[in-house]
Amino acid sequence: MRTVNQKLRESRRRHILAAAITCFIRDGFHQASMQEICKEASMSPGNLYRYFDGKEAIIEAIAEDERKENATYYGKLFRTKNFLKSLGKMLEAALKKAADPGYERIALEVAAEASRNPKVADMFARNEAETKMALVTALRNAAARGEIDGKLDFEAVATLLIALADGAIGRMSLDPALRTNALMPTMKIMITRFLRPPAPQ
Amino acid sequence: MRTVNQKLRESRRRHILAAAITCFIRDGFHQASMQEICKEASMSPGNLYRYFDGKEAIIEAIAEDERKENATYYGKLFRTKNFLKSLGKMLEAALKKAADPGYERIALEVAAEASRNPKVADMFARNEAETKMALVTALRNAAARGEIDGKLDFEAVATLLIALADGAIGRMSLDPALRTNALMPTMKIMITRFLRPPAPQ
Repeated sequence: MRTVNQKLRESRRRHILAAAITCFIRDGFHQASMQEICKEASMSPGNLYRYFDGKEAIIEAIAEDERKENATYYGKLFRTKNFLKSLGKMLEAALKKAADPGYERIALEVAAEASRNPKVADMFARNEAETKMALVTALRNAAARGEIDGKLDFEAVATLLIALADGAIGRMSLDPALRTNALMPTMKIMITRFLRPPAPQ
Repeated sequence: MRTVNQKLRESRRRHILAAAITCFIRDGFHQASMQEICKEASMSPGNLYRYFDGKEAIIEAIAEDERKENATYYGKLFRTKNFLKSLGKMLEAALKKAADPGYERIALEVAAEASRNPKVADMFARNEAETKMALVTALRNAAARGEIDGKLDFEAVATLLIALADGAIGRMSLDPALRTNALMPTMKIMITRFLRPPAPQ
């Protein structure tokens, strides 16, 4: 019985988060009210408040889900034996995900909120630090195998790779005509030339 | 007399924009009211409305100022004879400018507004297109001089360079401990290895 209830609770929780995301995309985080989220989710406030006590709790849950999803993703990707190829695939997947017009809007809303709300900013910073740590580990492993240049500053490389992915996602949202396929070949050249060991002199 | 009035008008205009930016950073674009902007600027609504008829007009003026500033900047920078060095300097300047904590907040506010407001989105897209065009021209000139690899897709390269700069600015706002100096040496290696002509086989 407990398991059934937990499953129901989890599915209800996901339903509320999806409704909230719809409202945030449509109205912006500040404009969206708990009342509208209830309406969108077809739930009474009494019921919805048993899951989340306000918009901040909802935004925290969205960031936490994103964190868990990323952690699984990086874990899989960095057990690879071909780092450069996997990195290319990861960047491609991130860009394709971002091609969903709603994705960038919600990301911008959450980022704008983070710039004013220290609690949301902390969650963002934690997600970012975890991603960076995973990348640095993967870079070290790849360097140990001789696949990439071991003399690079891996902290800075990880930061720049995240910057490149995040910035490319931003470009795609500004220019809806921009296609992942138009960027990927050049992006793969960029990361390969940047990271591979220099040719012997 | 006309010139004095124009100067006065321009200085009053800048004063209002600075007051508005202070309000947007403090309260967010949606929360900030024209009333608060008047208060921050120490101006009566009757006086302020002679310059801007609403928040949207203010945000348009901010984007337009940014566009003019960038155009001058790129114009200067790309008359250079050493593209890679100038590009490195340009990226460094952009990152240093972004180290101002208010800068990223206002950028996020404007970007969030752009995701909902087609007029603001158009201004952004125009700024971005101008920057990209300037970069493509500079890349072509540098390739013609043999300074960079002429076989690259310059449209994609320009997009990725803007993405890298924009993404790096985002990283600095998420992690205030991150210093421009910690990124620049690796960023310069990245763009040099990416863009220089491949060594002869």
